[in-house]
This record gives sequence, C-alpha cells and structure tokens, in this order.
Amino acid sequence: MKKNTLYNPINSFFDFTDLELNPPGKLIVRNLSDMALMYQDIEMVDKILENDDPMIYRFYNVKVPETKGHLQHCISMIFPGKIGKEYYMTKGHFHEIKDTGEVYLTLRGKGKMVMQTAEGDVDIKNMKEGTLTYVPPYWAHRSINTGKQPLVLFAAFRGDAGHNYGIIEEKGMKKIIVEEDGKPVIKNNPRYID
Amino acid sequence: MKKNTLYNPINSFFDFTDLELNPPGKLIVRNLSDMALMYQDIEMVDKILENDDPMIYRFYNVKVPETKGHLQHCISMIFPGKIGKEYYMTKGHFHEIKDTGEVYLTLRGKGKMVMQTAEGDVDIKNMKEGTLTYVPPYWAHRSINTGKQPLVLFAAFRGDAGHNYGIIEEKGMKKIIVEEDGKPVIKNNPRYID
Repeated sequence: MKKNTLYNPINSFFDFTDLELNPPGKLIVRNLSDMALMYQDIEMVDKILENDDPMIYRFYNVKVPETKGHLQHCISMIFPGKIGKEYYMTKGHFHEIKDTGEVYLTLRGKGKMVMQTAEGDVDIKNMKEGTLTYVPPYWAHRSINTGKQPLVLFAAFRGDAGHNYGIIEEKGMKKIIVEEDGKPVIKNNPRYID
Repeated sequence: MKKNTLYNPINSFFDFTDLELNPPGKLIVRNLSDMALMYQDIEMVDKILENDDPMIYRFYNVKVPETKGHLQHCISMIFPGKIGKEYYMTKGHFHEIKDTGEVYLTLRGKGKMVMQTAEGDVDIKNMKEGTLTYVPPYWAHRSINTGKQPLVLFAAFRGDAGHNYGIIEEKGMKKIIVEEDGKPVIKNNPRYID
C-alpha cells in the first residue's frame, strides 16, 4: 500500500435530541418543491406550495472517498406528515452501479421500505427501532414515514455505488403508501406505466 | 442482469431487551477460552478458566452472499467486564481484502475502537450511543467495552471483505486499554514487538 492512499478513521456523533450529526459531513435537504411531481395529489401539492415549502427529509452524509473500498454512510430522517393521503417519503433511487446493496438500520420512528427491481419485482418491509433492512443489489428503494415521529435511519453502501434518481423521478414506483382509516395501506400507483 | 442473480431483501429485528437478533442469521460467540492468549494478565486468565469460561462477546451476522456487490452486516455486543485490569474486547481483525472499510454505529453502552495499520499507525476513537465510527481500508480494528453495560454495535462491510484474525492473534495490538482509578487509560502493550 502506498502511504498516500491511507485514509484516517472518522468519528461522527448523532444527537437524538436535536437530530443533527456532528460534524455534519454533507447535509442534503429535500423540501416538497424538490419532489413535487412525485406525489399523487397534485392539487394538494400546489395548495401547500402556495404558502409553504415543508422539509420532507434530510440526510447527513459522512465525507468518505467515493471508491469501491470505502463505505459511504449517513443518517437520514424522514419527517412525519402527508401530502393528501400519501405519507412523506424519500425520492427513492437505484444505485448507479446497480450491482451494489445498501443496509438500513432504523433508529427511531416507524415506516416502510418500498423496493422494486427494473424487471418489476416488488418487496416492502416494515421498519421500527431495531429493524435491519437489507436492500440487495438491483433493488431501487424508497423510505416512507408512516408514524407520527421522525423516522431516523442509518444507512451504509459501497463508496462508489452512486445514486440514480432519474428512473423513479420519471416513472414513480409501482406501489404507493397511503393512509386509510388512520392506517398505512399499500396501493397500486395509478400513474405507474410499465 | 440474469434473473438468477437476484437476491431478495431481508428484514432482521434486534430486540434491545433480550439483545437478540431475529432471525439470528449466523451467531458467533467468543468466550474467554477462545482468546485466552490475547489478554495481558495470563495468571488471571488461568484462574478464571479454572471455574468458568465467560462470554466476552457475540455477534449476529445477517446471511448475505460474500461477494463485492453485497454488504455484510451484523449486530455485535461486547459484555462489560475485565480480565485483571484489561477491559473485555473483541479479537480484532484486518480484512482479508485489506482495501475495504467498515462502519460501526454504537447503539448502547460505551467503549473505544482501537485501530492500527500494518505500518504501525494507531488511532483510537471513543464510542457511545449515536457514535458513527468509520474504519477506513487498511486499518485493523478492535472494539473494547469500557462501560458497565453491554456495548452494542451495528457494523457493515463489503460482502467479500473477509476477516484476518491471525496477525493480531500472534502479535496483539500496540495499544491496550486498562482501568486505572476507575477510568479507562490507553497504555503501550508491553508484549508488542514491532
């Protein structure tokens, strides 16, 4: 090993009270306006955006080289709320290098991980504190907060995995999660075209 | 992608009350007799082993293919205790593929991550609930419980990383963590030979 390839260990501390990582690394924030077209209820999106642009989720990415020997890791939190009947969720992504997995550990809150392959396989897992959710290679994935508190997740993935948001931004996912009678229900996405 | 390479998502649940993972995946248990030669106080080790063989740590590994697109992940717990003045610790390891990192998240308890490269660089990080500890490629690492409760860690690493325990089993690490006046203190390992 060449000395100049050595990367030093990093400690980051997540504070469960203020929900911040210190040092914050790279903080990415998604407000409703960043994903307005991803929700079903377009009229409700427009109505909300007239007065406000609520934060849907944010994540703190520890700064690590984007190479295949390293592991990117982050703390993400999806806030509680709905757009119409549909729960707050992440944009969802494939990895650019599709043959790379990702592992999630739920630290607080409750929700669902909605997953889908390019061939149309679907899998949905429930998440609560203590749940390890393994998203294997080739599965696109989106986290959804179905609870009343922030859904706080730790995630790790290969340094060079990359994110591909485009396909889901264009097509959505086959399944959506909506609230009916106060409970989360899995529905077919009426706008999804195979 | 060939259909037969598709691996399905996995959910595992860690119960913080009984400290068990369900499903348990592959459970690995290390008792004192599995690492008797790694502690400084040989007489104390012999004395303890006359009557007992205490569990020092155990970890639950979720069953995932050992290939470079997957991510191995586990929950490990190091129990509180000392052998003489030296705190309970893991055996410590390099990865077989040395150019692969590992990330730890502390879920309960407190401790230290002791790290060392083949060239002799040393780094030691403190861990408590909410600490993300990134062990970059090329760093051997050992977890040490300096608290009075189990130190519970989540860890993730590349599927094909592998473990190399041999070098540390033979040589130990440069630094040891002992209790003095009720507090953890970092000391040079008197048995370590460069």
